[in-house]
Amino acid sequence: MSTAPPRAASETGDSLLLTPGPLTTSATVKQAMLHDWGSRDAAFIRINREVLERLTELAGATGTYTTVPLQGSGTFAVEAMLTTFVPRKGGKVLLLVNGAYGKRAARICDIAGLDHAVQETAENVPPSPAALATRLEAEPGITHVFVVHCETTSGILNPLAEIAQVVRRFGRRLLVDAMSAFGAIAIDARRLGFEALAASSNKCLEGVPGMGFVICRKETLAAASGNARTLSLDLHDQWAALEKTEQWRFTPPIHVIVALHQALAEHRAEGGIAGRCQRYTGNCRRLVDGMRRMGFHTLLPDGLQAPIIVTFRTPADPRFVFQAFYDRLKERGYVIYPGKLTVADSFRIGCIGRIGAEHMDGALQAIDAVLTEMGVRRRAPLAA
Amino acid sequence: MSTAPPRAASETGDSLLLTPGPLTTSATVKQAMLHDWGSRDAAFIRINREVLERLTELAGATGTYTTVPLQGSGTFAVEAMLTTFVPRKGGKVLLLVNGAYGKRAARICDIAGLDHAVQETAENVPPSPAALATRLEAEPGITHVFVVHCETTSGILNPLAEIAQVVRRFGRRLLVDAMSAFGAIAIDARRLGFEALAASSNKCLEGVPGMGFVICRKETLAAASGNARTLSLDLHDQWAALEKTEQWRFTPPIHVIVALHQALAEHRAEGGIAGRCQRYTGNCRRLVDGMRRMGFHTLLPDGLQAPIIVTFRTPADPRFVFQAFYDRLKERGYVIYPGKLTVADSFRIGCIGRIGAEHMDGALQAIDAVLTEMGVRRRAPLAA
Repeated sequence: MSTAPPRAASETGDSLLLTPGPLTTSATVKQAMLHDWGSRDAAFIRINREVLERLTELAGATGTYTTVPLQGSGTFAVEAMLTTFVPRKGGKVLLLVNGAYGKRAARICDIAGLDHAVQETAENVPPSPAALATRLEAEPGITHVFVVHCETTSGILNPLAEIAQVVRRFGRRLLVDAMSAFGAIAIDARRLGFEALAASSNKCLEGVPGMGFVICRKETLAAASGNARTLSLDLHDQWAALEKTEQWRFTPPIHVIVALHQALAEHRAEGGIAGRCQRYTGNCRRLVDGMRRMGFHTLLPDGLQAPIIVTFRTPADPRFVFQAFYDRLKERGYVIYPGKLTVADSFRIGCIGRIGAEHMDGALQAIDAVLTEMGVRRRAPLAA
Repeated sequence: MSTAPPRAASETGDSLLLTPGPLTTSATVKQAMLHDWGSRDAAFIRINREVLERLTELAGATGTYTTVPLQGSGTFAVEAMLTTFVPRKGGKVLLLVNGAYGKRAARICDIAGLDHAVQETAENVPPSPAALATRLEAEPGITHVFVVHCETTSGILNPLAEIAQVVRRFGRRLLVDAMSAFGAIAIDARRLGFEALAASSNKCLEGVPGMGFVICRKETLAAASGNARTLSLDLHDQWAALEKTEQWRFTPPIHVIVALHQALAEHRAEGGIAGRCQRYTGNCRRLVDGMRRMGFHTLLPDGLQAPIIVTFRTPADPRFVFQAFYDRLKERGYVIYPGKLTVADSFRIGCIGRIGAEHMDGALQAIDAVLTEMGVRRRAPLAA
């Protein structure tokens, strides 16, 4: 007689998404999408304004910065940031690369014909502020530096504050891909002095996917007229329309925006960035401790690990087959993610979204049970 | 004693959006967004595949064509189509312009540095197939022709079949912006032989806004590698990833896609394109008849009017103030839209979305009541 394994579920009965995104969101965030609004409607315009103001505020950027929203995924926002702000003539951006998202930025620059250079480290090695300083000193032609705050490829937290300090010291401009950390790891525009920062609705803010945004200096926006290579990804043009009419240029993803409005209210209720960071850090701690008890190894030492997503090395035991492991966890209501590393076989488990300690404990128990089923040797059962 | 006017509402209690979009959608379409899915999940991949296959089918394009989805608004899809398919070298696109969306396409070409020419007619005049033939004969360097099927600026239905015939006769390639008509006005890829056609989730398909798509020849896609000017708007790259993994390249707007899946099921249940066309045509007929009874004049003669959105000329009576008219209708639950014409003062009322005869009758009664309140002279009250 076979019995189905106990199945975990989110507030809305769905599998728990322990991934880099799309993520598990709250029932109330999704319920906010149960209405239609006109894009010129006063109620929607207020909601949209509150979203943009709160995003600016979360970056400690109220005053000299503003938030420009953009339809599409996070990559659209990163591409818009690079192509709107790095001047076509006289601009050169140094990309600090230690994973797929840094490489993607390099591809964006290639396609756009933007003058750029890459300073690359291995996926488990953060960019070196000292090496950056040497490079900037040697190359006065570099006008901008691009860095990914948390590289989801590995889950590494790059040293944003130190990098920002070097960029500032040499009088260059900093562009940040803060996609997977924004809302859970504190960012202070005044202290970092970045030029622009891109993030999206569906990572640590726990909205649904469908829009990105770029928090940027107003004076930088004002100077960027005509620099972008497309109409759709032109942040200056989007900003100019918003300033004039408080409306997006083209049909906004209304439901996504209203869901983000609700998500931001829930983020505030949880204690803002500090509260969310605390929950995610707890998730990450629980996950890593439990996995290590079973004999798994993290790619990264704890000091480099962001509390966003954790990369585990694939066990050496040949009975561990990732797809079977994935499928059996999925049957139990836990969706994990394959690895994206070039340096090692791996898989990833996310700590973000509407996920708490009880879900992490459940995921660990499910992993323990699946390993038993698969006959995979491990150091100790979870309970030990 | 003042009493509030009776207020109309959609299935979910919202104002009825008689606009070019975002539109009123069904309760069930929005309820489809009450879940979260992983983007690698088999259930979601099946939903996504069914959406893309059905879109291809609706264009009569199954076989040699495929549908490439894109994050963002409809304009993103149009820009992606133009910049992916008009070759950077040796390509030249003739844009048939009679409204804001044709002009926007010209702006896209300007920014992209695409060689292009414009054949423009007034907003109430369709492009002339004969003039097109003369132009194509005289200019063999024109490789592509771009036309907007229904120009939402005025609501005009452009003669797509005749234009397609001319383009085919001269061996050029046709790009269609079918944004506001797709799903309600029949399109037959085999007969029209277009190269590519762009549309979106939130017009006549009655999904929520947040994604566009381009239905295009597979051989055209295959030949377009490396032509796009951006990573985000590169349809070839999006297609290649979908072919390989059945996944979008970057985080898809999951909830928007699942809502479109539900919307397509409801579209099919209504009788597909024919059924939807019938309802919208009924809406349009009722609206135009009722408005004319009150003395309003349409911009367009009936023969040029698409059953999508109707432009009415602003009445001469100085007591008619659009903003007050708009606000009072909004109070009654009807959201209309300002005009976008350069040739005349006007406003627009849409016929699409989850809107039926009873809503149109209600809107006409509300307009009648508001005109009375405002003291605007009219030919006759509605009932006459």
